[in-house]
Amino acid sequence: MGFGIWTDRVEIDTQGNSQVLDITPQVRGVLERRGLREGQVLVFVTGSTAAVTSTEFEPGLCKDLPAFFERIAPRSIPYHHDETWHDGNGHAHVRASALGPSLVVPVAEGRLLLGTWQQIVLIDFDTRPRRRQLVVQCAGQGEG
Amino acid sequence: MGFGIWTDRVEIDTQGNSQVLDITPQVRGVLERRGLREGQVLVFVTGSTAAVTSTEFEPGLCKDLPAFFERIAPRSIPYHHDETWHDGNGHAHVRASALGPSLVVPVAEGRLLLGTWQQIVLIDFDTRPRRRQLVVQCAGQGEG
Amino acid sequence: MGFGIWTDRVEIDTQGNSQVLDITPQVRGVLERRGLREGQVLVFVTGSTAAVTSTEFEPGLCKDLPAFFERIAPRSIPYHHDETWHDGNGHAHVRASALGPSLVVPVAEGRLLLGTWQQIVLIDFDTRPRRRQLVVQCAGQGEG
Repeated sequence: MGFGIWTDRVEIDTQGNSQVLDITPQVRGVLERRGLREGQVLVFVTGSTAAVTSTEFEPGLCKDLPAFFERIAPRSIPYHHDETWHDGNGHAHVRASALGPSLVVPVAEGRLLLGTWQQIVLIDFDTRPRRRQLVVQCAGQGEG
Repeated sequence: MGFGIWTDRVEIDTQGNSQVLDITPQVRGVLERRGLREGQVLVFVTGSTAAVTSTEFEPGLCKDLPAFFERIAPRSIPYHHDETWHDGNGHAHVRASALGPSLVVPVAEGRLLLGTWQQIVLIDFDTRPRRRQLVVQCAGQGEG
Repeated sequence: MGFGIWTDRVEIDTQGNSQVLDITPQVRGVLERRGLREGQVLVFVTGSTAAVTSTEFEPGLCKDLPAFFERIAPRSIPYHHDETWHDGNGHAHVRASALGPSLVVPVAEGRLLLGTWQQIVLIDFDTRPRRRQLVVQCAGQGEG
């Protein structure tokens, strides 16, 4: 049993359009496979139109969060990004940068130290379904 | 003296309603008790209606930050979350998810590498006073 | 070759006014000098008027991100912070706190696990050119 860092990849299929997905089960799965007892899990989404945060994962907030992002970075206004690429996802980039691609969650006694009504979520802001690549990195004291 | 990770809990009483609290003294206290010389401190708030960030902790910004969140996620508009729970804190959830529950701060020579006018703050967005649970996790080279 | 944590400082000259700067080359430079093979890089900006996130670094988004922050935290509205200091950068503080001063990026096989169109960026919200201090901290298995 020693201190170490272990890097895993997890793929998640999304619907895009600011879909909020509970990825706590996948993160917990990596944690258990790695046998992390005391340490941290870094969850990082590759790409610049998705982001990671925590929320109470329930149907109401899964509508409220997209509505919030539509209010602060509306899809319909002009973005300079779309002049560059013409792919109509300028709003998705702005939302993802505002929220950020990573979250670090502490672990003790083999458990994620989340609240009871607090889940780790991926929000995919892109305008189409995507297969997302997550990096889940455990750091700390493992059982191995 | 070796590489390790140490998990501490800190309780903070808040007034809710987007109160901004300077938690730098509590984080520094954990750091000093653990004797962390070179490494990082992860500050993570348990629950999904509070968040952690850094700011210059002064009375003006302690009003400006709540005003900012009231502008981007007003308390008075309808939230689907409130249809689920009827507890009137949909705005608090949205604000907390937007800001995020965690912050990682580097440490060198036993000191937090913050700017002179940069403090670690907890913002409690809930609609009532709460006793908040913070996880403060030191990782790195300790004295122990 | 062992587990360790290494703290480096990087200085970046900015124009302020929400300028978006690609700091991926500087972060990669530290990574390579330290020979980090498997682990994480923490990027942290000292001070409370700048922030770190990731984005596709291209000219369009370098205009869209400042426009986004101008929309959600306009420069021209009154801030209580300016009553305290009269330095006219209340909006810069609010924007920086909202985005956050730090980003953790995973590393494997000596490479930052970013997407192809995903760069690490510093956004300087202050109202004047600044020389910014970044802390770049590598944690993990190095070659040394």
